[in-house]
Order: sequence, then C-alpha cells, then structure tokens
Amino acid sequence: MSTVHVLGASGFAGAQLASLIERHPHFALGQTTGRSDAGQSLATVAPEYRLDRTLTVYDPTGVSAGDFACVCYPHAESVEVVAELASRGARVVDLGADYRLRDPSLYPRWYGFEHGHDDLLAEAVYGLPEAYRDEIRSARIVANPGCYPTAAIIALLPLKGQLASVVIDAKSGVSGAGKTPSAAVHYSMVTDSIQPYKVLAHRHTPEIGQELGLPVVFTPHLVPADRGELASCYATLSGARPGPDELHARYVAFYESHPFVEVVDSPPGFRAVQRTNFAQVCAMIDDETGTVVTFCAIDNLVKGASGQAVQNLNLMAGRPETEGLA
Amino acid sequence: MSTVHVLGASGFAGAQLASLIERHPHFALGQTTGRSDAGQSLATVAPEYRLDRTLTVYDPTGVSAGDFACVCYPHAESVEVVAELASRGARVVDLGADYRLRDPSLYPRWYGFEHGHDDLLAEAVYGLPEAYRDEIRSARIVANPGCYPTAAIIALLPLKGQLASVVIDAKSGVSGAGKTPSAAVHYSMVTDSIQPYKVLAHRHTPEIGQELGLPVVFTPHLVPADRGELASCYATLSGARPGPDELHARYVAFYESHPFVEVVDSPPGFRAVQRTNFAQVCAMIDDETGTVVTFCAIDNLVKGASGQAVQNLNLMAGRPETEGLA
Amino acid sequence: MSTVHVLGASGFAGAQLASLIERHPHFALGQTTGRSDAGQSLATVAPEYRLDRTLTVYDPTGVSAGDFACVCYPHAESVEVVAELASRGARVVDLGADYRLRDPSLYPRWYGFEHGHDDLLAEAVYGLPEAYRDEIRSARIVANPGCYPTAAIIALLPLKGQLASVVIDAKSGVSGAGKTPSAAVHYSMVTDSIQPYKVLAHRHTPEIGQELGLPVVFTPHLVPADRGELASCYATLSGARPGPDELHARYVAFYESHPFVEVVDSPPGFRAVQRTNFAQVCAMIDDETGTVVTFCAIDNLVKGASGQAVQNLNLMAGRPETEGLA
Amino acid sequence: MSTVHVLGASGFAGAQLASLIERHPHFALGQTTGRSDAGQSLATVAPEYRLDRTLTVYDPTGVSAGDFACVCYPHAESVEVVAELASRGARVVDLGADYRLRDPSLYPRWYGFEHGHDDLLAEAVYGLPEAYRDEIRSARIVANPGCYPTAAIIALLPLKGQLASVVIDAKSGVSGAGKTPSAAVHYSMVTDSIQPYKVLAHRHTPEIGQELGLPVVFTPHLVPADRGELASCYATLSGARPGPDELHARYVAFYESHPFVEVVDSPPGFRAVQRTNFAQVCAMIDDETGTVVTFCAIDNLVKGASGQAVQNLNLMAGRPETEGLA
Repeated sequence: MSTVHVLGASGFAGAQLASLIERHPHFALGQTTGRSDAGQSLATVAPEYRLDRTLTVYDPTGVSAGDFACVCYPHAESVEVVAELASRGARVVDLGADYRLRDPSLYPRWYGFEHGHDDLLAEAVYGLPEAYRDEIRSARIVANPGCYPTAAIIALLPLKGQLASVVIDAKSGVSGAGKTPSAAVHYSMVTDSIQPYKVLAHRHTPEIGQELGLPVVFTPHLVPADRGELASCYATLSGARPGPDELHARYVAFYESHPFVEVVDSPPGFRAVQRTNFAQVCAMIDDETGTVVTFCAIDNLVKGASGQAVQNLNLMAGRPETEGLA
Repeated sequence: MSTVHVLGASGFAGAQLASLIERHPHFALGQTTGRSDAGQSLATVAPEYRLDRTLTVYDPTGVSAGDFACVCYPHAESVEVVAELASRGARVVDLGADYRLRDPSLYPRWYGFEHGHDDLLAEAVYGLPEAYRDEIRSARIVANPGCYPTAAIIALLPLKGQLASVVIDAKSGVSGAGKTPSAAVHYSMVTDSIQPYKVLAHRHTPEIGQELGLPVVFTPHLVPADRGELASCYATLSGARPGPDELHARYVAFYESHPFVEVVDSPPGFRAVQRTNFAQVCAMIDDETGTVVTFCAIDNLVKGASGQAVQNLNLMAGRPETEGLA
Repeated sequence: MSTVHVLGASGFAGAQLASLIERHPHFALGQTTGRSDAGQSLATVAPEYRLDRTLTVYDPTGVSAGDFACVCYPHAESVEVVAELASRGARVVDLGADYRLRDPSLYPRWYGFEHGHDDLLAEAVYGLPEAYRDEIRSARIVANPGCYPTAAIIALLPLKGQLASVVIDAKSGVSGAGKTPSAAVHYSMVTDSIQPYKVLAHRHTPEIGQELGLPVVFTPHLVPADRGELASCYATLSGARPGPDELHARYVAFYESHPFVEVVDSPPGFRAVQRTNFAQVCAMIDDETGTVVTFCAIDNLVKGASGQAVQNLNLMAGRPETEGLA
Repeated sequence: MSTVHVLGASGFAGAQLASLIERHPHFALGQTTGRSDAGQSLATVAPEYRLDRTLTVYDPTGVSAGDFACVCYPHAESVEVVAELASRGARVVDLGADYRLRDPSLYPRWYGFEHGHDDLLAEAVYGLPEAYRDEIRSARIVANPGCYPTAAIIALLPLKGQLASVVIDAKSGVSGAGKTPSAAVHYSMVTDSIQPYKVLAHRHTPEIGQELGLPVVFTPHLVPADRGELASCYATLSGARPGPDELHARYVAFYESHPFVEVVDSPPGFRAVQRTNFAQVCAMIDDETGTVVTFCAIDNLVKGASGQAVQNLNLMAGRPETEGLA
C-alpha cells in the first residue's frame, strides 16, 4: 500500500479523486485537505461519494518520502506546494496548470504570474499516458493535463507531425467550471442554451498547441450538462491524404495499447463515457475539401481530471494502468 | 398615459416588469432603478428584453402625486420606501412581502423584522385580482402576492370556507430563487434532480394560510426548469362531498369572469403558461378517500410577479384588466 | 457461482440488471434475451455498460433447476413465463407487475387482464427487503416492487399501523417511463416543465395501498431528469402524535439493520442516490396541523428496479445483502 | 388584408407560423391544414398558442389568385403542392427544402427524389432577406432557408467572395428535429449530453455551399435545449487579412439596413434570441493563425423557420419587413 495525499479535496475533481483513492486496492488515502472547507466532512461537501473523512488543513510535516500527493488547487497556487512536496521526497501529480507549460515565459502571459521554478518545470512530465506513458512511470512531478487538452490531444495525437492547421470546437459540461457559484453557472443562465466563452483567449490554448506542435484555434462552449466534454476537431494535413478506412485504421493502431481510449465508428456524445475514465474517439475525412474531422468525448472530471490522476499514479507506482478505474 | 416607476429593475421580475410597462399602451416607464447595478443598461443586465434604459439610483424627488410605483426589493427593504412613495401621493404595487401579511406580529416571526407601519398594513390590499379585484381598483398600496401563494390560492379559492385540511406540494423553476448566484442555484446542483427545501418553514406559508382561512402544510421543491410554478394541492372538505363534474363546474363558474384563469380538464404542466399571465387550474376528487386534488400552474415571473403587477396596475388605473398582457 | 438469466435485457432496467449480474462476484450471467432487439449486442443497445453480449431469443430449455431468472417484461406479459420458469425449478424475480398484487381481482381492474395463477400469486413474496427480508430468502417467486411503491413504502413503513390517511406526491425522472419513444418523452415536451400524469389512476396505487394497509392518494409527476424518484408523503396518524426527535428516532431504529436505507436530517433530492441502490429517507412533522411529512429518494432504475432485484437475488442465494451493489 | 394559408400547421414550425399569422395586423389566416392531425384543434396540438382553429384537410379549391400560402411539409412532399398553388395564382413560401437548391441534380443525390420542375426551381428565390430582399419582394415562389443555413450564412455572408475555406460547427436545440417521437429525441438520450450527428452528410450542406459559393465542412450537434441554433464558423480568407476592428466594422456596415440582425461584441448564446426573429452575430479573428471565427445565434423555429416566413411574406406583400414580428 502507498499513501496518497489529496490537497484540495473539496472541489468537484478533488472529492472524486479522494473517493477513487479510498476505493483503490493499492493506495491508502492520506491527508484530505480543504481551505475554507477545513473541518467539514467530505460526506457533507460531496454526499454522493459517502466518504466519511474530515477535511483538514494541509500539514507538510505529515508527508513522508515515498508518499504520493495530488494537488487540486487553482492555477498559481500549486507552484510552491508542489515544489515543497517534491523536496520532501513525495512524488506529485498536480491537477492544476502550474507545471503543464514547458516554456516558463508563457506563465506571465497566459496565467499572470512568474513561475520561478524553471528546473522543476523542465523536469515535470505532461501527464497524458497516451503520449508519455514511459516518462510518467519514473516521474517525480506529473502535470495532469487540463480537461479540454485531454480531449483535444487524444482526438488529434495520431496525426501529430502531419498537422497543417487545427481548429478545436470544444463543448463542456458545467462541472468543468468548478464549484464556485457565479452568474455564469446560475441554472437560469445555463439551461436551454449553449454559450461560447473565452473564445481565442482560453488558457488551455497554449497547452494544446505545445503538445500538438502547432498553434491551434480553440473555442470552448458551455453546454447545459453536468459532466462531459467533447472536442470536435477540424484539421488540414500536410503530405498524403488518407482515405476514410486508412484514417480509422491509423487511429485503431495508435490506440491499440491504450486501455482507456475507444476508437468508435460514429461520433461520440457524453453518455457512454460519463463517470468513466474512457475516451471515445472517432476520425472522419471530408471527401470534397480533404478536411479531417475528429471527435473525442471524455468525462471532464474523470479522464479530464481525477481518473487521469489515478491512471498516472498507477503508472508511477508500477501498478496496472487500469487498477481502481474499472 | 400614466407614469410607472420600477424600483429594483435589475432582478428577474423587475426587468420583465420594466419591459411590460415599456410596451404597455397606457403606461410610460418612469424611473428604473438598481442598486449595485445602477449605471448599467437594462439591455446588458437582461438582454432578452432589448430595453435600452440606464438603471439609475432611486430619486424620491422624481416621484409625483398620481404616479404609480412598483417596488421589487427583498423583504424588509421595501417597507419604508413604500411608505414614502405613498406619502408622496404615488400609488404603489409592492412585489415584495412587506405588505402581504395582515397581522403585524407575523413579521418578526417569519421575516425577522418589526414592521412599524400598522396603519399602512391595515390599508394595503392583497393584490390577487381573482380574490380582491374591486378593492384593488381603489387601493393606494397593493401587496402583490408571492409566486407560490398565487398558484396555491388560485388552486383552492373556489373551495374557501369548505376547507378542512390543506396540503400544498409546490414545484418551482429556478428563476423563483432570484438572480443572486449561490450553491443552491449552481447548474450542477440543480440539474437532473428535484429538491425539497425550506420544508414546513417557507415564508409563503402564513400568506397562503391567511388567504385560505386555515393553517396549511406547504412543501416547496426546486425543479430543474427556468420558469414555471406548479401547486399540487390536497384538501379535505367539510360539508357535502362534490362529485367530479360538480367540482369542475364549480371551478368553471368561479373563474368565469377572470380572464387569466383557465380551468382545464387535465392537470397542467409549465409549458402552456410560460411567459404568459395565465394560470391553468384543474380540480379532481379521489373517489375512495374523498380527497380533493387540485393543480395550478403559472409562470412564476409573470402571473407570479411582474404580469400580476401589471394586472393590478390596470385595475388601479381603470384600464382593461388584460391590457398590455395579451 | 449461480446462473442468472435476464429476460428482457434491452430496456433501461434490464440492461442495467445484466450489467450488475455480469460484475457480481457470485452470479454468472445466463441468457440475456430481447424480442425486437434479439441479435443485437447489449454494447449497442446500452453502450454505457460495455457489456459485449448478444441478445438472444428466450430459450426455455436452457433453464436448469436451481437457476435464477429475472423477468423484465411489460405487465401481462410475464405472468406465464414466470409460471413456466418456476415449473422448471428456477427461482424467479419478476421486475414487472404481474405478481405484486395479492388480490387476483385487482388485475382485471387495474391491469386489464385475468391473472389465472392464483396459487402462484398467493405464494409470491413482495420483494421489498425492508419489509419481507426473511420471506424473500426462501421464496420461489419474488415480485420486485414498482419504482414508485419502493420509494413511497420506504417513506412510510415505520408508521404502518398508525396511518390514518396518506397522500403521496411523487416525482420521477423520465427513464421511469421506459425506452419506447412517445410524445410524452420527447425532449421538447419534457424539458423546462414538470407534468402531473395519471393522477388518481396510476397502476402503482393499489400496490402501495396493499403494503401500507389503507387506500392512498397517489399523484405522480414527470420531472425533467433522467434518473431518480422522490416520494413526498403526507400522513395523518391515529394514536399519539410523536415529537420531531421521536419521529426521527423511530425511523433510525426501524432502518438500522437495513444497509440500503439512509435516514437523513434534511429532505433528499436525487443526486446522492443516483446510480446507487441507496434510499434516503427523511421524516418531519408539522407542529400546527400534526401532519407527518416524509420523503424518500431512490434511483428508479437501481433501488427501484435492477439493484433491488440483485438485493433480492442475494437474499435468495444466501449471499450478503449488499454483494455486488457497493 | 391578405389571406395566408398554412399547409402543415400541426408541427412545431407550422403551429407557430399559424399563430404569427393570426396575430399579424395585415394577414388573415386562411386554411390551416394537417394530415394525421386533421380534425383536431390547434389549441390541443400546440396549447401554448391558444389558437382555437380546427386543422382541416387541404382543399386546393379554397385557394384564390392573390392568396399567399406557406407550406410546412417534409422534403419531397411540397414539390408538387407548391407547383399547384402557384398555378392557382397563389404566391408561396415553402418552408421545406424542395425549392432551395438551384441545381436540380442535387435533389436525387441529397434528397433521394427527382425534382421535375426545373422551371419553377429556376424561378424560386432563396428566402433569406439579408441576401435577397429585393428579389423576394416580387417572387412567386420563395424557398424559406433551412434553420442551419440561416445561421451559417448570416454568420459568413459579409465575407462572401473572400472565403477560401469554411468549417461550420453547428449546435441545435431538439425542436429542430421536429415533433415525431424517436429514440434520438427521447429525453433520456438527449439530456446531459451533446451529440454530433449526420457529420459530413447533413442535407443542409449543399444549401450552405450554394449560398456562400464554395464547398463547406458542416457538422451539426444536438444540444439538450428546446429552441435555438448556434453556428460557430471558422474561415480562412483570400486577400488581405482584416484587423479585428475592421472585421467588426464590416459586419456592422453589412447588416446596418437589416432590422433582424444584431452585430454583437461577444459571442452569442441562445437566450437573447429565443422566441424572437433576431439573429445575433459576432465576428473575431485569431491573431496567430489568421482564422476568422464568427458566430450566429437564432431561434430555429422563428428566424430559422416561421418568423423568417413572415418576414418574407411582409416583403412579398409590400408591408414593413418587421410587421407582426416585434
């Protein structure tokens, strides 16, 4: 058994992560911390998980070398605690954005803060097992991808190197916006609509571009749904244009060894992936224009956050990749 | 033309009321005030009404004798401004709760404040035209009913005097909770559920009891819908038990002269009344137990607030009851 | 290991039941049958369960003595097949209505058919473990309760014997109406509304009355939600009126030994019970009128159908009651 | 007053169209026909419009020269009746697809039938007032655009002639799929998801391409909403790349004289256009890739169908373009 601390366990992703760890055959739940919620029970904060643990204030001295820690903090707030956890000998999965971008100069521009830990940034591994499985196994710091990048990158990864232009039209359920009340997540504002937001300005844009190797157009939309994320992607390719069967076969081959990616024949919606760690992917090509159209659907809180963190922890701990996620 | 000031025009009910007044053939919109929103345009705050008016800070000196004023404030906040408006010679429709209860001692108990204007409270008319049409015509202060009481009272009014016990199981769309963000109206908390709240403790309870003439059991539920309100009512009667046709006929006769009440044959949902000032009512009786089961559906923001205010203004101004509401 | 056949596995409840059996440590899935869907894969019909089994036509000769069988057929269609399964030595859980009512004369009146198996009807046990746990252990035919009766009876069972009158205002998600397309379940008809239906005429009425011991008023409403059921119950009591703490304590004591009933302090919504076999119950009393107000929330497809069937199978097979349901 | 017959008045669009005509100051409602619904009242079929008209079987002899007629039939079913109406001297707005495509050879390919009225097809005017206002005024046959093409074309029309490639990622509420029940519109299949469908195969594709002047990639998605349509469009341009302000100014100038198009500063959702004939448009440009990103939101049943038909009738009858639509 290995101990996993969950820092920031009161949000949507953190609470589900604590629940996944608690039920995991190999991991034992260590500290489960909150800030304004410290002192409350997780069973109150997130009753659906029936997890009777009191949220505590994070205690660094309770972390031992060899422990694992998952940090579910807003951006700019995990950069230091991750560094501290690493210095104590813990291996860390950061569910926030602070270790995702390799170029430190992108942090002031996109996130409004100076990073200050260039060495750790260089060391951190981008935690998408479908792209970096081997590196994750031995990593000390894993930067769990954003929910949108998870869907968008899985949708396009088999085409990497051949991509000439990429447009990502993404759709997310409201839980992706987090638990804090605001006008934007008021039921009456969300229902019976679909709303584009942060168009050409969303912070996940450089993360997607970094992993696909070119600048991308990224347009998120808020959908009247709780959980789920769909990336509808439009790409032009350099080099030979594949036929539809060839394209499908390339996706099947690429994801053959990845247990959580299902290559499907018709474009996926949210339903078949909700509350699972699966990603469903479909790739098509428009005969007339040659545009490749691909889709990837995930659960934003599982494959897009907590489940992917467990998948990474499994790899880091030398466990089967699917353990505790079936 | 008569001037109607709308105090508190930035909320759901206030914005719709301003819009109804603006389009009304007889009324002219006077001040449209906000507090934290003062300075903003109504077209920004509530874009669906396309009403290009700047929200101002309320200016008492801009109110003339003979003006009408509608006050859309939270409870405890309209009691003084209504008194002031009346003292300036305005005739007031208060959309809040501060003039609805005839017994001043109920205010400390249910609303947590001392009323202090017993004379005005005694003078105020309860603004349900189906019950007090004549009194409203000449009233100086009209207390526009709460949304739940509107539905519940219309559902049971034809039985008043014969009611032995009353249970009201009520269901409301989320707009009834107002515009302020909170955990309770977060999309992810509301969707795919129905939630009882303030059971046996909702402030609309004494208002319903006052108008029906007996203590009632009142249980509100939050529905994943934007607009609409349904009161499902269960009553036992003293005196002779009516047959189903007789009961229906009694409702038809009672509401014959009331243009906004539609007595229907099968229990109504929200759809046919949404965005209208209509109430749909259906009355049935259980053969075996003798329990009378009645339903009333309204739009909580129209017949339950802004439309009913216009209906009252029409009566007060000697206009046709339906003017500006068709 | 015991074999469990699932007859009618293509509907909402049947597909989930097959999935629960497949993942159960003790049970092995036998035949999974469909009618119009025979030949299709369950993975196509209900992709969320990832169950790669082909639906077959029911083959009676494939049933052995000692097998278990679950029948998920519309009413009037399971009466004969249950009899046949029993004659082959199988023990049966019928998820339909055909063995729920003890009085055969109620079938022509409420379900429109003559039952014709009075002996089996007399033998069948009503499959609510919270009421008949011991009888279920040795039963040959278990009549799995309807979804509404499950919620309504659990909400009121601790008061049985003291009930003087009962009103049940029930709310169900759309999956309760089954998978067959109709105008009533068209998205545009359901969304943004709540709709009473089959008022005073729903077939679950006599079933609830049978188990509570008195005629009840039962009013179902269709809620814009997928899964979940809430019974809001209003009862008057004969005998001494309990105080609120006493009432709560009575519920806690009554359900102490029942692992799937959670007695909670505030009225439940759907969220904490969705996709679980738990029922959440809350009991309150109105001080002024003495009306007892109780709530029970369940997932209509789990505790209201497939999960309860597994709970019954566990009891019948001598397994722990919660096995395969955690 | 002019008479307007509505053929096929029982569907979502037809019923709303009949309601708009009934309330229009200049038009009088002529025949309102249904097929399977003939004999029923519109007040039963679509209660929200409170239109007490009995649906009749279409009677050609009741159509006089100079009458207007609107045909709301499925594709392939209006081609003949439009020809007949025209031969009787009526002027026709066809809300179906049968007169939208100028190239007769596209009908067998996309709609599966031979058109057979090449002369009328050549004569028919595409009924998008923002593109063909003058031609509509004198047209005998107006082909009311599809809902998706209305949104997509308005989103891109100011760029016509400079478009090098076009991707349209479109999102529609469920009413766009029509009133007929099916698995695809079952509440439980639609809610809490978003579903791509008919990707690269939707029949609106050639219609959009025809009007924009190049082949387009078109991907519709079904949104859990009742009414509304959003086209998110991605275009590359030939010629000089405009700056963001220049682009916005071009849209403002283009639509200045069009009363139903609102050029807005931030991307629109459904809410501000629902139940109106307005289209909201927003145009942006991605600095890094030069991709132009534009959005257009409409109500699919109003500007996407019935309201646009009235707008066309107004132009044909020499009335103000906005009459009866404010």
